[in-house]
Amino acid sequence: MSHRIITIGREFGSGGRTIGREVAKRLGIPCYDQEIINKMAEESGFTKEYVENESENASRRSWAGASFNMDQFVSFPSNQDRLWAIQHRIISEIGEKENCVIVGRCADTILDGQADLLKVFIHADFDARARRIVEKYGETEVPTEKRLREKDKRRALYYQLYTDKKWGAVENYHVILDSSVLGIEKCVDIIASLY
Amino acid sequence: MSHRIITIGREFGSGGRTIGREVAKRLGIPCYDQEIINKMAEESGFTKEYVENESENASRRSWAGASFNMDQFVSFPSNQDRLWAIQHRIISEIGEKENCVIVGRCADTILDGQADLLKVFIHADFDARARRIVEKYGETEVPTEKRLREKDKRRALYYQLYTDKKWGAVENYHVILDSSVLGIEKCVDIIASLY
Repeated sequence: MSHRIITIGREFGSGGRTIGREVAKRLGIPCYDQEIINKMAEESGFTKEYVENESENASRRSWAGASFNMDQFVSFPSNQDRLWAIQHRIISEIGEKENCVIVGRCADTILDGQADLLKVFIHADFDARARRIVEKYGETEVPTEKRLREKDKRRALYYQLYTDKKWGAVENYHVILDSSVLGIEKCVDIIASLY
Repeated sequence: MSHRIITIGREFGSGGRTIGREVAKRLGIPCYDQEIINKMAEESGFTKEYVENESENASRRSWAGASFNMDQFVSFPSNQDRLWAIQHRIISEIGEKENCVIVGRCADTILDGQADLLKVFIHADFDARARRIVEKYGETEVPTEKRLREKDKRRALYYQLYTDKKWGAVENYHVILDSSVLGIEKCVDIIASLY
């Protein structure tokens, strides 16, 4: 029998990761997020920081690789493509192992047809997200607005590159919630109630 | 104090209208849907069928009107623009009067800032919607798939024409649910629990 898995896509600063952790705690199942990065770093030999950047950064290198590619990425896979292959395998293995929550990492597409999925997307008002990332990660030299737009753009491109679907488009999710209006707690209630 | 109003946008055949009626019944508040069409017909002198078609059909005539327009639609308003003005007034009056559910009709935008809104959008799998419209409205000479695509396209264009926003885009709603996966009953539970 296939496992029941909640996948959570999220805009940067929307609290999606926190919601994922809370839902998992409430349901008594594991939540995979940073663990996947750690495992990818371990298996690839790259640092965690490199994995984190590359696996969410649909870089020019990667697009170039895609257009030069003659043999389905076999001939000259970029580091990003190698990381994608590892990520794909790790998430498939998780999907075969247990009920859980998985935050981000295109898990909704990787596990499609393999597990019993509840596909969630969390978004929030721009100002609320800006406040949240400053609270959580502090100020940086890059203006907050630019940080938000850049990160969302990278996530969207990464998702599109590897899934051929549009990130955050209604047809790709079963439940889409605005955490800035509903609040983190209520989002957790709804998702947990659907499990 | 502003009234609490649930607005429900929905793909054709997704069961959004049924969900709206059920939520209203559960909460003991009125649901406005067909009533708005009736009132628009009464006030404009057009038939209900005409109102229903024109107010969801962003026709070429209307686009032409929009581009020819020099005085904010005042000089030569199309029938559609006249109906929009009536619809705008009727919905604003409802918003000032009571807590309720309003299905479709760009109520989310018309009442923005005027009422305490919960903005909902219901979508569903294409095949589920096709089955539903045949069950509810029967077969017609037009193939089911074409009926669905046409109606969605009209709703999207109408919404965009009068609100300048994208119909069904995540940033315009607080809760977006896939009724074909969650089921009508569960959608009603979630929406009612948020009120």
